[in-house]
Amino acid sequence: MIFILENDIYGFEKNYRRNLINSISGFKSLNLIGTKNEKGSENLALFSQVIHIGAMPPLIGVLFRPNAMNSKRHTLNNIEKTGYYTLNHVNSKIYQQAHQTSAKYPEGISEFECCNLTPEYILDFYAPFVKESHIKIGLEFVEKYIININQTELVIGKIKHIIITNENAIEEDGQVKLELSDSLTVCGLNSYYTAELIEKMPYAKV
Amino acid sequence: MIFILENDIYGFEKNYRRNLINSISGFKSLNLIGTKNEKGSENLALFSQVIHIGAMPPLIGVLFRPNAMNSKRHTLNNIEKTGYYTLNHVNSKIYQQAHQTSAKYPEGISEFECCNLTPEYILDFYAPFVKESHIKIGLEFVEKYIININQTELVIGKIKHIIITNENAIEEDGQVKLELSDSLTVCGLNSYYTAELIEKMPYAKV
Repeated sequence: MIFILENDIYGFEKNYRRNLINSISGFKSLNLIGTKNEKGSENLALFSQVIHIGAMPPLIGVLFRPNAMNSKRHTLNNIEKTGYYTLNHVNSKIYQQAHQTSAKYPEGISEFECCNLTPEYILDFYAPFVKESHIKIGLEFVEKYIININQTELVIGKIKHIIITNENAIEEDGQVKLELSDSLTVCGLNSYYTAELIEKMPYAKV
Repeated sequence: MIFILENDIYGFEKNYRRNLINSISGFKSLNLIGTKNEKGSENLALFSQVIHIGAMPPLIGVLFRPNAMNSKRHTLNNIEKTGYYTLNHVNSKIYQQAHQTSAKYPEGISEFECCNLTPEYILDFYAPFVKESHIKIGLEFVEKYIININQTELVIGKIKHIIITNENAIEEDGQVKLELSDSLTVCGLNSYYTAELIEKMPYAKV
Protein backbone atom coordinates (compact mmCIF):
# COMPACT_ATOMS: atom_id res chain seq x y z
CA MET A 1 0.00 0.00 0.00
CA ILE A 2 1.38 3.41 -1.02
CA PHE A 3 0.27 6.54 0.88
CA ILE A 4 1.16 9.92 -0.62
CA LEU A 5 0.30 13.10 1.29
CA GLU A 6 -0.04 16.62 -0.08
CA ASN A 7 3.35 17.63 1.28
CA ASP A 8 5.00 14.59 -0.32
CA ILE A 9 3.63 15.79 -3.67
CA TYR A 10 5.22 19.25 -3.22
CA GLY A 11 8.53 17.55 -2.41
CA PHE A 12 8.66 15.36 -5.53
CA GLU A 13 10.97 16.20 -8.44
CA LYS A 14 8.99 18.24 -11.00
CA ASN A 15 8.68 15.64 -13.77
CA TYR A 16 7.86 12.87 -11.27
CA ARG A 17 5.07 15.03 -9.84
CA ARG A 18 3.76 15.94 -13.30
CA ASN A 19 3.62 12.29 -14.36
CA LEU A 20 1.97 11.17 -11.13
CA ILE A 21 -0.74 13.84 -11.06
CA ASN A 22 -1.41 13.62 -14.81
CA SER A 23 -2.10 9.90 -14.50
CA ILE A 24 -3.80 9.61 -11.11
CA SER A 25 -7.31 10.73 -12.17
CA GLY A 26 -7.64 7.85 -14.65
CA PHE A 27 -7.88 7.23 -18.38
CA LYS A 28 -8.43 10.21 -20.67
CA SER A 29 -9.72 10.83 -24.18
CA LEU A 30 -7.19 11.51 -26.89
CA ASN A 31 -7.82 14.08 -29.58
CA LEU A 32 -5.86 16.09 -32.10
CA ILE A 33 -7.08 19.69 -32.28
CA GLY A 34 -6.90 21.24 -35.73
CA THR A 35 -6.93 25.01 -36.23
CA LYS A 36 -6.03 27.58 -38.88
CA ASN A 37 -4.96 31.16 -38.26
CA GLU A 38 -6.34 34.21 -40.09
CA LYS A 39 -3.52 34.00 -42.65
CA GLY A 40 -4.31 30.37 -43.48
CA SER A 41 -1.49 28.61 -41.57
CA GLU A 42 -2.67 25.28 -40.18
CA ASN A 43 -1.88 23.98 -36.72
CA LEU A 44 -2.35 20.58 -35.09
CA ALA A 45 -1.86 19.69 -31.42
CA LEU A 46 -2.55 16.70 -29.15
CA PHE A 47 -4.89 17.15 -26.16
CA SER A 48 -6.08 14.80 -23.43
CA GLN A 49 -7.72 17.37 -21.14
CA VAL A 50 -11.13 17.29 -22.82
CA ILE A 51 -14.46 17.08 -20.98
CA HIS A 52 -18.08 16.55 -21.98
CA ILE A 53 -19.93 19.69 -20.83
CA GLY A 54 -23.49 19.06 -21.99
CA ALA A 55 -25.72 17.52 -24.64
CA MET A 56 -28.28 20.33 -25.23
CA PRO A 57 -26.75 22.47 -26.57
CA PRO A 58 -23.95 20.00 -27.44
CA LEU A 59 -20.80 21.28 -25.69
CA ILE A 60 -17.22 20.12 -25.14
CA GLY A 61 -14.55 21.71 -22.93
CA VAL A 62 -10.77 21.72 -23.44
CA LEU A 63 -8.31 22.83 -20.75
CA PHE A 64 -5.28 24.85 -21.86
CA ARG A 65 -2.12 25.58 -19.90
CA PRO A 66 -1.59 29.02 -18.34
CA ASN A 67 -0.56 31.80 -20.65
CA ALA A 68 2.69 32.57 -18.84
CA MET A 69 3.93 28.97 -18.73
CA ASN A 70 3.31 28.15 -22.32
CA SER A 71 5.15 29.73 -25.18
CA LYS A 72 3.28 27.61 -27.74
CA ARG A 73 -0.29 28.82 -27.76
CA HIS A 74 -1.06 28.60 -31.45
CA THR A 75 -4.09 26.40 -30.88
CA LEU A 76 -5.74 28.69 -28.34
CA ASN A 77 -4.83 31.84 -30.27
CA ASN A 78 -6.35 30.42 -33.44
CA ILE A 79 -9.53 29.33 -31.62
CA GLU A 80 -10.04 32.75 -30.08
CA LYS A 81 -9.25 34.69 -33.25
CA THR A 82 -11.11 32.57 -35.82
CA GLY A 83 -13.80 30.97 -33.63
CA TYR A 84 -13.40 27.46 -35.05
CA TYR A 85 -11.49 24.26 -34.27
CA THR A 86 -11.75 20.52 -34.76
CA LEU A 87 -11.34 17.54 -32.43
CA ASN A 88 -10.12 14.38 -34.14
CA HIS A 89 -9.92 11.05 -32.30
CA VAL A 90 -6.50 9.42 -32.30
CA ASN A 91 -6.46 5.78 -33.45
CA SER A 92 -3.87 3.00 -33.42
CA LYS A 93 -2.62 3.85 -36.94
CA ILE A 94 -1.71 7.46 -36.10
CA TYR A 95 -0.86 7.66 -32.39
CA GLN A 96 2.88 7.92 -33.04
CA GLN A 97 2.36 10.81 -35.45
CA ALA A 98 -0.14 12.37 -33.03
CA HIS A 99 2.42 12.14 -30.23
CA GLN A 100 5.03 13.79 -32.44
CA THR A 101 2.83 16.91 -32.80
CA SER A 102 3.77 17.71 -29.18
CA ALA A 103 7.39 18.43 -30.17
CA LYS A 104 8.27 22.13 -30.12
CA TYR A 105 8.15 23.02 -33.80
CA PRO A 106 9.09 26.60 -34.63
CA GLU A 107 6.50 29.25 -35.50
CA GLY A 108 5.09 28.92 -39.01
CA ILE A 109 5.71 25.16 -39.30
CA SER A 110 2.58 23.01 -39.74
CA GLU A 111 2.44 19.91 -37.57
CA PHE A 112 0.28 18.32 -40.28
CA GLU A 113 3.27 18.38 -42.59
CA CYS A 114 5.97 17.52 -40.06
CA CYS A 115 3.99 14.61 -38.63
CA ASN A 116 2.65 13.25 -41.90
CA LEU A 117 -1.03 13.81 -41.20
CA THR A 118 -3.43 15.15 -43.82
CA PRO A 119 -5.53 18.31 -43.37
CA GLU A 120 -9.04 17.78 -44.68
CA TYR A 121 -11.70 20.45 -45.27
CA ILE A 122 -15.29 19.29 -44.88
CA LEU A 123 -18.57 21.13 -45.50
CA ASP A 124 -16.88 24.56 -45.72
CA PHE A 125 -15.80 24.38 -42.06
CA TYR A 126 -12.99 26.91 -41.44
CA ALA A 127 -10.68 24.67 -39.39
CA PRO A 128 -8.94 21.59 -40.81
CA PHE A 129 -9.96 18.07 -39.79
CA VAL A 130 -7.49 15.16 -39.74
CA LYS A 131 -8.19 12.87 -42.69
CA GLU A 132 -6.72 9.80 -40.95
CA SER A 133 -9.03 10.12 -37.93
CA HIS A 134 -12.30 8.14 -37.88
CA ILE A 135 -14.29 10.40 -35.52
CA LYS A 136 -14.09 14.15 -36.15
CA ILE A 137 -15.92 17.01 -34.47
CA GLY A 138 -16.16 20.60 -35.71
CA LEU A 139 -16.52 23.11 -32.87
CA GLU A 140 -17.38 26.79 -32.54
CA PHE A 141 -15.85 28.77 -29.66
CA VAL A 142 -18.45 29.79 -27.05
CA GLU A 143 -16.74 30.99 -23.89
CA LYS A 144 -13.56 30.73 -21.82
CA TYR A 145 -12.93 30.54 -18.07
CA ILE A 146 -9.56 31.29 -16.49
CA ILE A 147 -9.17 29.04 -13.44
CA ASN A 148 -8.18 31.27 -10.55
CA ILE A 149 -5.93 28.89 -8.63
CA ASN A 150 -3.53 27.99 -11.46
CA GLN A 151 -4.45 30.22 -14.43
CA THR A 152 -5.30 27.31 -16.74
CA GLU A 153 -7.95 28.21 -19.30
CA LEU A 154 -11.11 26.18 -19.93
CA VAL A 155 -12.39 26.71 -23.47
CA ILE A 156 -15.97 25.68 -24.18
CA GLY A 157 -17.14 24.99 -27.71
CA LYS A 158 -20.42 24.05 -29.34
CA ILE A 159 -20.54 21.07 -31.70
CA LYS A 160 -21.29 22.14 -35.29
CA HIS A 161 -20.39 18.95 -37.16
CA ILE A 162 -19.80 15.31 -36.32
CA ILE A 163 -18.18 13.03 -38.90
CA ILE A 164 -17.91 9.29 -38.27
CA THR A 165 -16.31 7.23 -41.00
CA ASN A 166 -17.66 3.82 -39.92
CA GLU A 167 -21.42 3.77 -40.42
CA ASN A 168 -21.79 0.92 -37.90
CA ALA A 169 -20.15 2.92 -35.12
CA ILE A 170 -23.41 4.50 -33.88
CA GLU A 171 -25.70 2.20 -31.93
CA GLU A 172 -29.51 2.34 -32.10
CA ASP A 173 -29.64 4.36 -28.88
CA GLY A 174 -27.22 6.99 -30.22
CA GLN A 175 -24.13 5.79 -28.39
CA VAL A 176 -20.88 5.69 -30.35
CA LYS A 177 -19.01 2.38 -30.21
CA LEU A 178 -15.58 3.94 -29.91
CA GLU A 179 -13.77 0.64 -30.53
CA LEU A 180 -15.31 0.45 -34.01
CA SER A 181 -13.51 3.71 -34.80
CA ASP A 182 -10.29 2.37 -33.22
CA SER A 183 -10.29 5.32 -30.78
CA LEU A 184 -7.51 5.15 -28.18
CA THR A 185 -7.30 6.28 -24.58
CA VAL A 186 -4.26 7.73 -22.79
CA CYS A 187 -2.78 7.62 -19.31
CA GLY A 188 -0.69 10.61 -18.28
CA LEU A 189 1.12 12.33 -21.13
CA ASN A 190 2.46 9.47 -23.19
CA SER A 191 1.04 5.98 -22.49
CA TYR A 192 -1.37 4.96 -25.23
CA TYR A 193 -4.00 2.24 -24.74
CA THR A 194 -6.66 0.39 -26.71
CA ALA A 195 -9.92 -0.33 -24.90
CA GLU A 196 -12.05 -3.47 -24.88
CA LEU A 197 -15.73 -3.53 -23.91
CA ILE A 198 -16.59 -5.51 -20.78
CA GLU A 199 -20.28 -4.70 -20.56
CA LYS A 200 -22.88 -2.13 -21.50
CA MET A 201 -25.14 -1.85 -18.48
CA PRO A 202 -28.88 -1.06 -18.54
CA TYR A 203 -30.23 2.10 -16.87
CA ALA A 204 -29.83 1.62 -13.09
CA LYS A 205 -33.06 1.30 -11.08
CA VAL A 206 -33.61 1.04 -7.34
CA MET B 1 -19.52 8.00 -43.72
CA ILE B 2 -21.96 9.64 -41.29
CA PHE B 3 -22.35 13.43 -41.27
CA ILE B 4 -24.28 14.98 -38.39
CA LEU B 5 -24.90 18.73 -38.38
CA GLU B 6 -25.77 20.95 -35.41
CA ASN B 7 -29.43 21.12 -36.44
CA ASP B 8 -29.61 17.33 -36.74
CA ILE B 9 -28.46 17.13 -33.12
CA TYR B 10 -31.27 19.45 -31.97
CA GLY B 11 -33.77 17.26 -33.83
CA PHE B 12 -32.71 13.97 -32.25
CA GLU B 13 -34.82 12.31 -29.56
CA LYS B 14 -33.54 13.38 -26.14
CA ASN B 15 -31.97 10.09 -25.01
CA TYR B 16 -30.43 9.48 -28.43
CA ARG B 17 -28.83 12.93 -28.31
CA ARG B 18 -27.62 12.43 -24.75
CA ASN B 19 -25.98 9.10 -25.62
CA LEU B 20 -24.38 10.46 -28.80
CA ILE B 21 -22.92 13.61 -27.25
CA ASN B 22 -21.82 11.84 -24.05
CA SER B 23 -19.81 9.35 -26.09
CA ILE B 24 -18.50 11.45 -28.97
CA SER B 25 -15.60 13.12 -27.14
CA GLY B 26 -13.92 9.77 -26.39
CA PHE B 27 -13.07 7.53 -23.46
CA LYS B 28 -13.46 8.94 -19.95
CA SER B 29 -12.13 8.18 -16.48
CA LEU B 30 -14.44 6.39 -14.07
CA ASN B 31 -14.56 7.33 -10.40
CA LEU B 32 -16.85 6.90 -7.43
CA ILE B 33 -17.07 10.09 -5.38
CA GLY B 34 -17.46 9.52 -1.64
CA THR B 35 -18.81 12.24 0.65
CA LYS B 36 -20.34 12.59 4.11
CA ASN B 37 -22.75 15.30 5.25
CA GLU B 38 -22.44 17.28 8.50
CA LYS B 39 -24.67 14.77 10.29
CA GLY B 40 -22.48 11.83 9.28
CA SER B 41 -24.62 10.33 6.47
CA GLU B 42 -22.43 8.86 3.76
CA ASN B 43 -23.02 9.26 0.03
CA LEU B 44 -21.46 7.60 -3.01
CA ALA B 45 -21.96 8.52 -6.67
CA LEU B 46 -20.44 7.59 -10.02
CA PHE B 47 -18.78 10.30 -12.15
CA SER B 48 -17.08 10.27 -15.53
CA GLN B 49 -16.78 14.02 -16.07
CA VAL B 50 -13.45 14.42 -14.30
CA ILE B 51 -10.49 16.44 -15.64
CA HIS B 52 -6.85 16.92 -14.64
CA ILE B 53 -6.47 20.64 -13.88
CA GLY B 54 -2.85 20.93 -12.83
CA ALA B 55 0.08 19.25 -11.06
CA MET B 56 1.43 22.12 -8.91
CA PRO B 57 -0.65 22.55 -6.85
CA PRO B 58 -2.21 19.14 -7.61
CA LEU B 59 -5.76 19.81 -8.83
CA ILE B 60 -8.66 17.81 -10.26
CA GLY B 61 -11.96 19.12 -11.66
CA VAL B 62 -15.38 17.44 -11.61
CA LEU B 63 -18.35 18.71 -13.65
CA PHE B 64 -21.81 18.59 -12.00
CA ARG B 65 -25.19 18.93 -13.66
CA PRO B 66 -27.14 22.18 -13.37
CA ASN B 67 -28.90 22.81 -10.10
CA ALA B 68 -32.38 23.07 -11.61
CA MET B 69 -32.14 19.86 -13.63
CA ASN B 70 -30.90 17.65 -10.87
CA SER B 71 -32.88 16.78 -7.82
CA LYS B 72 -30.09 14.59 -6.45
CA ARG B 73 -27.28 16.88 -5.47
CA HIS B 74 -26.09 15.17 -2.31
CA THR B 75 -22.53 14.88 -3.58
CA LEU B 76 -22.15 18.57 -4.46
CA ASN B 77 -23.97 19.73 -1.32
CA ASN B 78 -21.69 17.63 0.86
CA ILE B 79 -18.57 18.87 -0.91
CA GLU B 80 -19.55 22.51 -0.49
CA LYS B 81 -20.67 22.16 3.12
CA THR B 82 -17.89 19.94 4.48
CA GLY B 83 -15.04 20.80 2.09
CA TYR B 84 -13.92 17.19 1.53
CA TYR B 85 -14.55 14.36 -0.93
CA THR B 86 -12.83 11.29 -2.34
CA LEU B 87 -12.31 9.95 -5.86
CA ASN B 88 -12.06 6.16 -6.08
CA HIS B 89 -11.19 4.40 -9.34
CA VAL B 90 -13.70 1.82 -10.51
CA ASN B 91 -12.25 -1.60 -11.32
CA SER B 92 -13.57 -4.74 -13.00
CA LYS B 93 -14.65 -6.29 -9.67
CA ILE B 94 -16.96 -3.42 -8.71
CA TYR B 95 -18.21 -1.74 -11.89
CA GLN B 96 -21.68 -3.28 -11.60
CA GLN B 97 -22.03 -2.01 -8.03
CA ALA B 98 -20.59 1.34 -9.08
CA HIS B 99 -23.16 1.58 -11.88
CA GLN B 100 -25.95 0.79 -9.43
CA THR B 101 -25.08 3.89 -7.34
CA SER B 102 -26.62 5.95 -10.17
CA ALA B 103 -30.12 4.63 -9.34
CA LYS B 104 -32.34 7.22 -7.64
CA TYR B 105 -32.18 6.12 -4.01
CA PRO B 106 -34.31 8.16 -1.61
CA GLU B 107 -32.84 10.78 0.72
CA GLY B 108 -31.06 9.32 3.73
CA ILE B 109 -30.17 6.01 2.06
CA SER B 110 -26.43 5.31 1.71
CA GLU B 111 -25.35 4.01 -1.69
CA PHE B 112 -22.48 2.26 0.08
CA GLU B 113 -25.00 0.01 1.79
CA CYS B 114 -27.44 -0.44 -1.11
CA CYS B 115 -24.66 -1.23 -3.57
CA ASN B 116 -22.56 -3.40 -1.29
CA LEU B 117 -19.45 -1.23 -1.23
CA THR B 118 -17.48 -0.55 1.94
CA PRO B 119 -16.80 2.93 3.34
CA GLU B 120 -13.24 3.21 4.56
CA TYR B 121 -11.75 6.01 6.68
CA ILE B 122 -8.05 6.67 6.15
CA LEU B 123 -5.68 9.04 7.96
CA ASP B 124 -8.51 10.95 9.66
CA PHE B 125 -9.81 12.22 6.31
CA TYR B 126 -13.42 13.43 6.72
CA ALA B 127 -14.92 11.83 3.62
CA PRO B 128 -15.19 8.06 3.10
CA PHE B 129 -13.03 6.19 0.59
CA VAL B 130 -14.19 3.00 -1.15
CA LYS B 131 -12.37 0.03 0.35
CA GLU B 132 -12.73 -2.08 -2.83
CA SER B 133 -11.05 0.56 -5.04
CA HIS B 134 -7.31 0.27 -5.72
CA ILE B 135 -6.59 3.96 -6.42
CA LYS B 136 -8.12 6.51 -4.04
CA ILE B 137 -7.69 10.27 -3.88
CA GLY B 138 -8.71 12.56 -1.01
CA LEU B 139 -9.63 16.06 -2.18
CA GLU B 140 -10.28 19.42 -0.55
CA PHE B 141 -12.74 21.82 -2.22
CA VAL B 142 -11.01 24.88 -3.69
CA GLU B 143 -13.38 26.74 -6.01
CA LYS B 144 -16.41 26.36 -8.26
CA TYR B 145 -17.32 27.81 -11.64
CA ILE B 146 -20.86 27.90 -13.00
CA ILE B 147 -20.68 27.50 -16.77
CA ASN B 148 -22.75 30.30 -18.27
CA ILE B 149 -24.12 28.54 -21.35
CA ASN B 150 -25.68 25.52 -19.59
CA GLN B 151 -25.37 26.15 -15.85
CA THR B 152 -23.26 23.06 -15.20
CA GLU B 153 -20.88 23.49 -12.27
CA LEU B 154 -17.15 22.81 -12.39
CA VAL B 155 -15.79 21.95 -8.94
CA ILE B 156 -12.04 22.15 -8.46
CA GLY B 157 -10.33 20.32 -5.63
CA LYS B 158 -6.79 20.01 -4.35
CA ILE B 159 -5.29 16.57 -3.77
CA LYS B 160 -4.64 15.90 -0.06
CA HIS B 161 -4.05 12.14 -0.13
CA ILE B 162 -3.30 9.49 -2.71
CA ILE B 163 -3.64 5.83 -1.80
CA ILE B 164 -2.54 3.11 -4.23
CA THR B 165 -2.95 -0.47 -3.05
CA ASN B 166 -0.52 -2.07 -5.53
CA GLU B 167 3.02 -0.94 -4.74
CA ASN B 168 4.17 -1.78 -8.26
CA ALA B 169 1.62 0.53 -9.86
CA ILE B 170 3.87 3.62 -9.80
CA GLU B 171 6.66 3.67 -12.38
CA GLU B 172 10.11 5.12 -11.76
CA ASP B 173 9.13 8.36 -13.51
CA GLY B 174 6.04 8.84 -11.31
CA GLN B 175 3.47 7.63 -13.81
CA VAL B 176 0.73 5.34 -12.51
CA LYS B 177 0.24 2.13 -14.48
CA LEU B 178 -3.54 2.18 -14.34
CA GLU B 179 -3.87 -1.40 -15.63
CA LEU B 180 -2.02 -2.69 -12.54
CA SER B 181 -4.83 -1.22 -10.44
CA ASP B 182 -7.44 -2.70 -12.80
CA SER B 183 -8.83 0.80 -13.45
CA LEU B 184 -11.58 0.91 -16.07
CA THR B 185 -12.59 3.50 -18.65
CA VAL B 186 -16.12 4.36 -19.79
CA CYS B 187 -17.82 5.44 -23.01
CA GLY B 188 -20.99 7.49 -22.62
CA LEU B 189 -22.98 6.73 -19.50
CA ASN B 190 -22.93 2.98 -19.29
CA SER B 191 -20.37 1.14 -21.47
CA TYR B 192 -17.47 -0.10 -19.35
CA TYR B 193 -14.08 -1.00 -20.85
CA THR B 194 -10.72 -2.41 -19.79
CA ALA B 195 -7.64 -0.84 -21.36
CA GLU B 196 -4.50 -2.45 -22.70
CA LEU B 197 -1.19 -0.62 -23.17
CA ILE B 198 0.03 -0.30 -26.76
CA GLU B 199 3.08 1.85 -26.15
CA LYS B 200 4.59 4.37 -23.81
CA MET B 201 6.25 6.95 -26.03
CA PRO B 202 9.39 8.95 -25.20
CA TYR B 203 9.25 12.75 -24.92
CA ALA B 204 8.67 14.09 -28.45
CA LYS B 205 11.54 16.07 -30.02
CA VAL B 206 11.74 17.95 -33.30
